[in-house]
Amino acid sequence: MAKRKPKVMRPKALPPRGFRDYFGEDLRARAAMLDRITGIYHAYGFDPLETSAIETVEALGKFLPDVDRPNEGVFAWQDEDESWMALRYDLTAPLARVYAQFRNDLPSPYRRYAVGPVWRNEKPGPGRFRQFYQCDADTVGTPTVAADAEICMMLSDALEAAGIARSDYIVRVNNRKVLNGVMEVAGVLDPSDPSRFEAGRGIVLRAIDKLDRLGPDGVRALLGEGRKDESGDFTGGANLSGEQAEIIMGFMEARRENGGDTCARLRELVKGSDTGLTGVQELETIAELSDAGGYGPDRLLIDPSVVRGLGYYTGPVYEAELTFEILDEKGRKRQFGSVAGGGRYDDLVKRFTGQAVPATGVSIGVDRLRAALAAKGDAKAAAKGPVVITVMDRERMADYQAMVAELRNAGIRAEVYLGNPKNFGNQLKYADARNAPVAVIEGGDEQARGVVQIKDLALGKALAANITSNEEWKAQPAQMEIGRNDLVAEIRKMMGRADGE
Amino acid sequence: MAKRKPKVMRPKALPPRGFRDYFGEDLRARAAMLDRITGIYHAYGFDPLETSAIETVEALGKFLPDVDRPNEGVFAWQDEDESWMALRYDLTAPLARVYAQFRNDLPSPYRRYAVGPVWRNEKPGPGRFRQFYQCDADTVGTPTVAADAEICMMLSDALEAAGIARSDYIVRVNNRKVLNGVMEVAGVLDPSDPSRFEAGRGIVLRAIDKLDRLGPDGVRALLGEGRKDESGDFTGGANLSGEQAEIIMGFMEARRENGGDTCARLRELVKGSDTGLTGVQELETIAELSDAGGYGPDRLLIDPSVVRGLGYYTGPVYEAELTFEILDEKGRKRQFGSVAGGGRYDDLVKRFTGQAVPATGVSIGVDRLRAALAAKGDAKAAAKGPVVITVMDRERMADYQAMVAELRNAGIRAEVYLGNPKNFGNQLKYADARNAPVAVIEGGDEQARGVVQIKDLALGKALAANITSNEEWKAQPAQMEIGRNDLVAEIRKMMGRADGE
Repeated sequence: MAKRKPKVMRPKALPPRGFRDYFGEDLRARAAMLDRITGIYHAYGFDPLETSAIETVEALGKFLPDVDRPNEGVFAWQDEDESWMALRYDLTAPLARVYAQFRNDLPSPYRRYAVGPVWRNEKPGPGRFRQFYQCDADTVGTPTVAADAEICMMLSDALEAAGIARSDYIVRVNNRKVLNGVMEVAGVLDPSDPSRFEAGRGIVLRAIDKLDRLGPDGVRALLGEGRKDESGDFTGGANLSGEQAEIIMGFMEARRENGGDTCARLRELVKGSDTGLTGVQELETIAELSDAGGYGPDRLLIDPSVVRGLGYYTGPVYEAELTFEILDEKGRKRQFGSVAGGGRYDDLVKRFTGQAVPATGVSIGVDRLRAALAAKGDAKAAAKGPVVITVMDRERMADYQAMVAELRNAGIRAEVYLGNPKNFGNQLKYADARNAPVAVIEGGDEQARGVVQIKDLALGKALAANITSNEEWKAQPAQMEIGRNDLVAEIRKMMGRADGE
Repeated sequence: MAKRKPKVMRPKALPPRGFRDYFGEDLRARAAMLDRITGIYHAYGFDPLETSAIETVEALGKFLPDVDRPNEGVFAWQDEDESWMALRYDLTAPLARVYAQFRNDLPSPYRRYAVGPVWRNEKPGPGRFRQFYQCDADTVGTPTVAADAEICMMLSDALEAAGIARSDYIVRVNNRKVLNGVMEVAGVLDPSDPSRFEAGRGIVLRAIDKLDRLGPDGVRALLGEGRKDESGDFTGGANLSGEQAEIIMGFMEARRENGGDTCARLRELVKGSDTGLTGVQELETIAELSDAGGYGPDRLLIDPSVVRGLGYYTGPVYEAELTFEILDEKGRKRQFGSVAGGGRYDDLVKRFTGQAVPATGVSIGVDRLRAALAAKGDAKAAAKGPVVITVMDRERMADYQAMVAELRNAGIRAEVYLGNPKNFGNQLKYADARNAPVAVIEGGDEQARGVVQIKDLALGKALAANITSNEEWKAQPAQMEIGRNDLVAEIRKMMGRADGE
């Protein structure tokens, strides 16, 4: 028997775990930031590309064909015809597919930029979301290190265009080949048999990556016999001899005052390794090209301590770090840290075509950069609501409509109150919630006399917060009566005054 | 036994069926169009909202909980915890979820706009994709018809801002309540028992929707006993009497010269139906408000023949149609047709909260509007590649880099050739493929004399196409030698000349 009164099951008004929404001024500030960054990319000759959010799982290429449900790390599902499709997890894998698909029609080299969301099927956590924005630029089809140098310079320009001051960031550059050269010299990489010492090199890489956190002594311990951490847990070491370890440590500490001196030091460290010397030469060329472009070591720095995702990269790697301090959630000062990174990866489309195609590119973490700019206070000035025309007489909506059109035609953001106009207090509360700079009031009496009241809500807020003195209050009354014909001019004046404060 | 040489299985370099990529100038033109449209939305006091691409299936609310795999129409899959999630199929369902979730923090009424891709799990076909862009504006939380009028006027402004001339579009407005009133008068809707005649009304609705295609006689046949089409197939009719059918036909043909006259005619047609009279009153208010705002019947037209998705809407419905002709794939002239539509839907969040919240809104079909603007030829002027600095001497990359930085700092889009510089012909071919306006050439000889060669590629193309006369060719040589210090000024001059042509 069917129940007569089934319980109403209401859906929860929540996005899935790990997803979020963006609102209002925050979105507009992000859009403006991305416009400025992609404006730089475009000026450098990069063309935009927007791929579909969905790729075939085989094109994404992260998964084994025999895995029953290949959703590890990505959101994947089966199409009607049983083939697997998935949401992209970055903007590079779709670039590889597009370049392989259209390689005969695209210019060579192909410079492209892309902006958009990517999705990761990972456990969400505080500040860790499963959808986030990336903003990438890549040059495909050329092995010249001039392409890497160009990306580094462009990254510097992009950060400045986004609003990061020149003294507040640094682009650090390193080269995977130099590290390989150092490994050769230290005897943990044999060019004639790359698989030897592989496990040891893994430990070395992970140790280098921990320099920031563990300091030189901690890294030395990991290069040697291993290290016991504060909780008593033991991490096995690479078992290098003291001499071997010092070669690796020397690499990390090779940074000098300028690129030339750093490269000279690196040249000593990789003596005897062809790969290493090639790597140093590439860094020298990058330093030379960036110096010629006016990108000195205050912006672009050769820094051997940069190790990022080195397993993936084959040549230069680079990273942009913000150097100013912010307060963390516990109120402690700390460096903001990395907001962009990239490097050279030389087998972009080989999976598709069998042909190796060299490429280099950078990815800016859009949400992190936005957070940095917000921490610097860029959002405050931008947040401005519309002028609100209140409704004193609901029969005269057409008049208010004409008024709002007049303001908009003069370039002033404006809206008519469209809620229930009965309670006038609610209209002012609404204007306040909208962050409106000005409210306009025109009742029957005002209309008869050809005037309107305009209320300076910004000033009203300031008065309420006791920011201005009594004299100022008298000199700048928060509400004034003006001629109806002076509406645009007087509101402009009032808004200009608020901007000037 | 494992095979020794497994066959290499290469992934296909293709997106999944029904998906596509967007490139270069097409993307930039779309971004510029959306900036202009959302600029209008923003000026009207609408705030941006970007929801996550993924919602829970229960929040999307289109699916029965007992369906094994609720993927009909949407792309859906199960999260690790077995809950179903799906890609949004429009921008309205996420708005409903957001409004229900944040209703205590959002202004009321809440005006919001949203731009982004939506996904449909439908069979792809020529011109039918499974991911496409929408650009929506909705006002949530107010029943006043002034909100509908505002959206219609804003839609008109948005189309003009996007580049559609005033004579090239029309926003048509109708009201679901008027149609219901007409149905009451015709005796196919009983307000005290809405389920009576439901099947017949469905046939009537579908018949009205076919007016464009079948003409009045075809619709009359469907309102009566039915209709045999050209192939001999018979479609059953609503079996209305001749008198009933004429009432319905009268509704469709009620459009007069201006909104006032049309409403007067509709008032006669719905006499006796409260719902119908309310609907006519609402249309009168919309006409009055839009006239007051300066949106005459050349832009905003009361038109009873508009019937769109009427099952969903509860009050005013509106549609923007482009009225200019384009050539279809067979070279025949036809009207471009609808590019945007919307209306009032008064139970947006009831599913979540149990409370009815009135809303009205419009959705612009971004790809269709882009196609219309492209058909009008907006893309031609925009397509301009970067100035290309060729590489005559690969050892002097730093000099070329300095040159390109100089151009970019002067606001000129420019790039250095980064392919293999050995074959100079390839460099010019590349510049051509990039649609570069100018190529710059500086070999060792030029450098020694302090000059560079600049080549007018736009003019070169024109010459090759025999567009200019011999005299012009002599007066405007396609290649000239200039002082190195005059680089920016001379390139500006050359590009300005090309723009002027």
